[in-house]
Amino acid sequence: MANENLQDLYVEQLRDLHSAETQILKALPKMISKTTHPELKQALQEHSKVTEKQVQRLESIFTELGEKATGHKCKGMEGLLVEGEEALTDFKDGDVLDAAIIASAQRVEHYEIAGYGTVRSMATMLGFEKQAKLLQETLDEEGDADETLSGLAERVVNIDALKAD
Amino acid sequence: MANENLQDLYVEQLRDLHSAETQILKALPKMISKTTHPELKQALQEHSKVTEKQVQRLESIFTELGEKATGHKCKGMEGLLVEGEEALTDFKDGDVLDAAIIASAQRVEHYEIAGYGTVRSMATMLGFEKQAKLLQETLDEEGDADETLSGLAERVVNIDALKAD
Repeated sequence: MANENLQDLYVEQLRDLHSAETQILKALPKMISKTTHPELKQALQEHSKVTEKQVQRLESIFTELGEKATGHKCKGMEGLLVEGEEALTDFKDGDVLDAAIIASAQRVEHYEIAGYGTVRSMATMLGFEKQAKLLQETLDEEGDADETLSGLAERVVNIDALKAD
Repeated sequence: MANENLQDLYVEQLRDLHSAETQILKALPKMISKTTHPELKQALQEHSKVTEKQVQRLESIFTELGEKATGHKCKGMEGLLVEGEEALTDFKDGDVLDAAIIASAQRVEHYEIAGYGTVRSMATMLGFEKQAKLLQETLDEEGDADETLSGLAERVVNIDALKAD
C-alpha cells in the first residue's frame, strides 16, 4: 500500500481550489469589462469581492494545517477559463454575449460547487469541524451566485438576447 | 448590431455539450479500470450507458434543428479530463484513488449540470418545448449521478480512504 490517506487528498483538493480561485480572480476583470447589462456587471463585481474572501478562508485553513497553498495548478479551471475567453470573442451582440458570459460563469460556479462539496465532506470526515464550517460558507456563497446568475438569465438577459438580431 | 440571437448561442451550447459527452465517453473506460470499489465501478459503468443515451438525445435535437452536432471542441471538459487523468497517476492507494476519482467525476457531473441547465432554460425561452423536455431528462440524470457519487464517497469510499496509509 502506498503511504497515502484521505488527508493527503484533502490537501491536494484544497490546493486545486486555491489555484482555481486565483485564476478566477485574474480572469474576472476582462469578463466584467465585456458585459452590457448593469445588473450582470454588478453581480460579477460582487462575486469578485466574495472570491477574495474565499481565498482568505482557504489560506487560513492552510495555516491551520501547516501546509502550503501553492504547488498545484488547477487544469480544470484553466480549461473552463479558456472556454470562457473563447465565448468573449465568438459573440459580438451585447445581449447574446451577456447570455454567453452567464453560461460560462455558471460552469465556473459549478466547478466550485463540486470542489467545495468534496472538501467540506472530507473535512467533516477528518474531524476538522472549523474547516468544514468555513468551506460550507463558501459552498453556500457559490450556490447563491449560481442562483443569481440563473435568475438574471431568465428574467432579463436571455429575453433581451431572444429579441437581438 | 451583429447578426446573432439566442438561438445561435443555444446551438453553440448544444455543440459544446455534444463535444463534452463524447470526450467523457472516451475517458470513462480508463477511469473505470482504475477503480477498486465494485460499487464505484458499477456506478461509472452505468453512467457510461446513460451518457450514450444523452448523446442520442442531443443528436435528435440537432436533427430537429437542421444543424450539425460537430464543429465545437469543449475546452472546459478537455481541462476537466486532463485534471482527472492527473489524479489517476497522483495517487497509488486504491481507496484514496477511488476518492480522487469520485472528486473528478463530480466536477464532470457539475459541468454538465451547469451546461444542461443553461440549454434547458434557453430551449424553453425559444419555445422548443420538446427539446426542453429531453434536456431536462438529461439534467435530472446528471443530478442523480452526482448524488450517487456523493453517497458512495460518504458511506464507503472516504471512510476506507481515511483508514488507508
